[in-house]
Amino acid sequence: MEGSGDNSSPGFTPLVVLELASDTKEEAIQWLLNRIEDSQQNGGAELLVKQLGPGVSAEEKENPNIFLVGSSRQRLLSGAEDVGLFKEFSDGSMRAFTCANKHNFRDFKGDGDSFFSMAECQYIVKHELDTLRAKDETHVPGHSQVKLYPGKSIIRRLQSKGILIQMFPLHEKEELKRLCFSWYKKVKFTFQPLDDIRHYFGEGQAFYFGFLEYFTFALLPMALIGLPYYLFDWEDYDKYVVFAVFNLVWCTVILELWKRCSASLAYRWGTLSRKRAFEEPRPGFHGILGFNPVTGREEPLYPTAKRHLRIYLVSLPFVLLCLYMSLYVMMIYFRMEGWALSIHSEEPTFWTEILLYIPSVIYAVVIEIMNLLYRYAAEFLTEWENHRLESSYQNHLVLKVLVFNFFNCFASLFYIAFIMHDMALLRQSLATLLLTSQILNQFMEAFLPYWLQRRRNKKMIHKLKRRRTLEDKELPLEEQVRLEASMSTYLGTFDDYLEQFLLFGYVSLFSCVYPLAAVLVVLNNITEVYSDAFKMCRVFKRPFSDPAANIGVWQLAFEAMSVIAVVTNFALIGMSPQVRAYFPESETHLILWTVAIEHGLLAFKFILCFLIPDVPKYIQIKLARLEFESLEALKKKVNW
Amino acid sequence: MEGSGDNSSPGFTPLVVLELASDTKEEAIQWLLNRIEDSQQNGGAELLVKQLGPGVSAEEKENPNIFLVGSSRQRLLSGAEDVGLFKEFSDGSMRAFTCANKHNFRDFKGDGDSFFSMAECQYIVKHELDTLRAKDETHVPGHSQVKLYPGKSIIRRLQSKGILIQMFPLHEKEELKRLCFSWYKKVKFTFQPLDDIRHYFGEGQAFYFGFLEYFTFALLPMALIGLPYYLFDWEDYDKYVVFAVFNLVWCTVILELWKRCSASLAYRWGTLSRKRAFEEPRPGFHGILGFNPVTGREEPLYPTAKRHLRIYLVSLPFVLLCLYMSLYVMMIYFRMEGWALSIHSEEPTFWTEILLYIPSVIYAVVIEIMNLLYRYAAEFLTEWENHRLESSYQNHLVLKVLVFNFFNCFASLFYIAFIMHDMALLRQSLATLLLTSQILNQFMEAFLPYWLQRRRNKKMIHKLKRRRTLEDKELPLEEQVRLEASMSTYLGTFDDYLEQFLLFGYVSLFSCVYPLAAVLVVLNNITEVYSDAFKMCRVFKRPFSDPAANIGVWQLAFEAMSVIAVVTNFALIGMSPQVRAYFPESETHLILWTVAIEHGLLAFKFILCFLIPDVPKYIQIKLARLEFESLEALKKKVNW
Repeated sequence: MEGSGDNSSPGFTPLVVLELASDTKEEAIQWLLNRIEDSQQNGGAELLVKQLGPGVSAEEKENPNIFLVGSSRQRLLSGAEDVGLFKEFSDGSMRAFTCANKHNFRDFKGDGDSFFSMAECQYIVKHELDTLRAKDETHVPGHSQVKLYPGKSIIRRLQSKGILIQMFPLHEKEELKRLCFSWYKKVKFTFQPLDDIRHYFGEGQAFYFGFLEYFTFALLPMALIGLPYYLFDWEDYDKYVVFAVFNLVWCTVILELWKRCSASLAYRWGTLSRKRAFEEPRPGFHGILGFNPVTGREEPLYPTAKRHLRIYLVSLPFVLLCLYMSLYVMMIYFRMEGWALSIHSEEPTFWTEILLYIPSVIYAVVIEIMNLLYRYAAEFLTEWENHRLESSYQNHLVLKVLVFNFFNCFASLFYIAFIMHDMALLRQSLATLLLTSQILNQFMEAFLPYWLQRRRNKKMIHKLKRRRTLEDKELPLEEQVRLEASMSTYLGTFDDYLEQFLLFGYVSLFSCVYPLAAVLVVLNNITEVYSDAFKMCRVFKRPFSDPAANIGVWQLAFEAMSVIAVVTNFALIGMSPQVRAYFPESETHLILWTVAIEHGLLAFKFILCFLIPDVPKYIQIKLARLEFESLEALKKKVNW
Repeated sequence: MEGSGDNSSPGFTPLVVLELASDTKEEAIQWLLNRIEDSQQNGGAELLVKQLGPGVSAEEKENPNIFLVGSSRQRLLSGAEDVGLFKEFSDGSMRAFTCANKHNFRDFKGDGDSFFSMAECQYIVKHELDTLRAKDETHVPGHSQVKLYPGKSIIRRLQSKGILIQMFPLHEKEELKRLCFSWYKKVKFTFQPLDDIRHYFGEGQAFYFGFLEYFTFALLPMALIGLPYYLFDWEDYDKYVVFAVFNLVWCTVILELWKRCSASLAYRWGTLSRKRAFEEPRPGFHGILGFNPVTGREEPLYPTAKRHLRIYLVSLPFVLLCLYMSLYVMMIYFRMEGWALSIHSEEPTFWTEILLYIPSVIYAVVIEIMNLLYRYAAEFLTEWENHRLESSYQNHLVLKVLVFNFFNCFASLFYIAFIMHDMALLRQSLATLLLTSQILNQFMEAFLPYWLQRRRNKKMIHKLKRRRTLEDKELPLEEQVRLEASMSTYLGTFDDYLEQFLLFGYVSLFSCVYPLAAVLVVLNNITEVYSDAFKMCRVFKRPFSDPAANIGVWQLAFEAMSVIAVVTNFALIGMSPQVRAYFPESETHLILWTVAIEHGLLAFKFILCFLIPDVPKYIQIKLARLEFESLEALKKKVNW
């Protein structure tokens, strides 16, 4: 271990922070640091590590086991090759970086000093740490209960056993300031600086903000067309039909166009044709030791049949039970609603008028609480299902949460629309639910964490002031790292996408009775961009970048919603009295026509999906050229 | 050019036949043969060529410009690497063959004499001939009108200019005899020898026969359940509903399971993970010379916008016009039908009873003729659309033909079912159409070509007998090649798949009124296997093998049909009087229930498609292992 406290030695840039439990044995720490610093030939990670010096408040109980990890420039270059990073080539195309070819990459100058962004460096360091594997150790020195298996990731083991508390990348103050300024500090009507966001936070984050922006712009036409319906009280169903059909086609078109948009972003960022590395088991995965049929390595195995039993015999019934409970709560809401109505009709005053809105608001709050509780249950259950891969875990979690959230948020609307047939109540409920959930979300997502963080921040500065006078407002590195370590951890884009998904549901499912929904969502999303940006920059720890090539399973979720929307909208249209008036003699004809048009529109949707290519032509050509070149190179190597 | 007529020289096995036009200039022939024999360093194909000696009937006007192409063993090995052939590795997995690694492949013995099947050799030779590119020649010597462009395929140019009449692989008499025997000579109830078929004809053919067999077995349960409906006259719609729902779910399941089946066949045959080589423009493609944005080579370019204009302004209206004409013919059929019925009802005799069936039979024949005519028009139009790639040409052709055939075959059934509401007539029409088209197909497909080929065969033997006495019935090579050259060319699996597609339509679209359809299709397919096998072995030239990994666009077509089937079946069920009896008070409820169940079933279908993995687990593991190993190998190469 090198001299601790000497954090500003030349050539050492702290990239990633490792915080070990304060009761970790000294020999375990020594062993871990040795492994991290050891050369690659010896199976080490060949990175640089320094212990963080004590903070100003060292007299208080504070964790001394915080380590900063950095890397030499040479190591970063070879690491970039390991992770298969794509960079811009001299001809403008994106190619996998290789050390042998480094001088042919566009921004490679001198010895490649500022070739990688800090986020890329941190991603490389994380990958190297994650793939630091146990050799012949049987357990962590000093912690005989923490077993190690040859060839398995040490860091993941330490993490799942609680010895490694957290591992996070450091913020860059200057960069962050610049990003904040161009992103949300000045109120302006330009696009977000997506390339800068990607540069600082990585592709996963940038995709979320890109999608948020795209989605908001895509909703603008709907909002503009919807506005006059509200302003001029167009209660005319003829017009609603036109609006609904436009909406449905538009939903399909925007989702298809997003795929193209997403492909060109992914191409620009070099993640489109990047190959996924072999996926390691997720940290929490456990099982009986055996040999992995793919790698041939010894690792815990868990029978698929057993997992299926858990999914179908426990998780599925649990989800169904939750759905039933959600229904039950809904029925209570309707009883409250009826009770409020009866009081109001008995003796209508100003207060009873307000009372009319109370059940909806309470119900909206209860829905949010139920969603939150269910979220924890779903995480627990999915964890218990013991999925081997992070991706499989994520898929099962998303599915569970999506189904429940969809049901919980929209069940009452479906009930009002198709059982009670009360369009006025539907419109009112829709508005209340939408507004309440928007307000709650903004509060829970940004203001609450911000307030907590500010308190922590102030306490730290206060503490500092007690010990020495602060010349500038810059915190010293020791305090800065401790401050960031105490920030909340950003849990990924899941909740953000989920929120957009539900908003999309409010817009599309009942678009023909409440054209104002799009306007509200657009307004919400404009503030959402700012609050999410603020949250990323100021409230949370910096997340590791995640080289995503698209928005993943959410594309599918949004498409499923747009299919469901076709069905609900046509059902509403078929039920409307104005449309019924066209078929005075026979209800059968009305329904048959509605169903026929609905089927036609569904077929049209699918054909449209086929007709619009997922990847723009110019990118297809560029990808084909790359593939052609590699084929030609291969051929030359073979023949001569 | 080596000594002609010396075809049986040691080491020369004729693989592929090139037939040039009889008026080809001698210098053009010399040039072509030189290019084929020239070494690869000089840009040649390094293959062996011999001219075919004159046949026994040399006195008659017969084409002397027939050449046999063979290859040295070494050249085949390097060619196999060029085309990326997959062979079985020593550990049982399928891997891309490389010369450096050749001794690690399972069946590689000595110098690799019988390592490749003859079909594989022929495929390699075809690939090498196809990729024989023009160097600095500006035109074919002796034919100044046939321009050549540097880097473009010579063979394709000669083919499109009519100098190369045909290029086909030779049959192997012994192999073929053995294959015929195990395939269709002995009547037996075992599976087809798919591996042998693939060995002789290649993967594309084997997939068709595999699908035919799978589909026939998959229809057996439907046939078995459908039979009692016919035998015991169960006119009960309750039972029909059960049958229809079973059918619809079953259709989805068998199509999904076929994907798995197909993946395991493709894995066994090494085409599953094989990469497609860069696709050259198809022979007929023309345009203004320019630079291909992908390859950077000079080649004809044709603007996409112009092609789109041709598709949307000419092809699409033409298809619509054809559909309208098909409707018109259908209306004539119904008038004939009415006329026959009126005659029969006026004075019913035995002859008028037969007369009742005449319009249906005529209509069925007319449908087949229209399909045939339309097919030519579609081919002409798609050719005229000037698609650059063979795959794009095929997709547009399949789409055009599918839509028209679907409409032409099923429009009358839809009309009877949903406009006339005459279930008895629907059943009768369905039966007549199905039977007539089956009989016509078998006749057109196998017996007619067989009869023509037999005549030709007899003439040849007769001719031989005139000149010398034949000791054994073996033809000498000269005659054998000329005989095969005169055989019809097999035009690919298109028509075979199309027939199965339409049969699938008859089974699934109206399954709830005619449960016997599945029985008829099963019976048809049992004879179809034999007649198709016979046709492949005896009637047609041997086709080049085609390394397919699945049945391609047909999987999609069958799936689309099964979705349409859900809609038609539920419409039929909703219309049935027995089901109506359940909702005596309100037709609306009946329809709503029908629509709701239909939507539920459609949703269930899609969920089922997601739940059943497309590739079986054991193959997923094997593929993952291969990928993991190549990643590991790459890592080792990088780090040390």
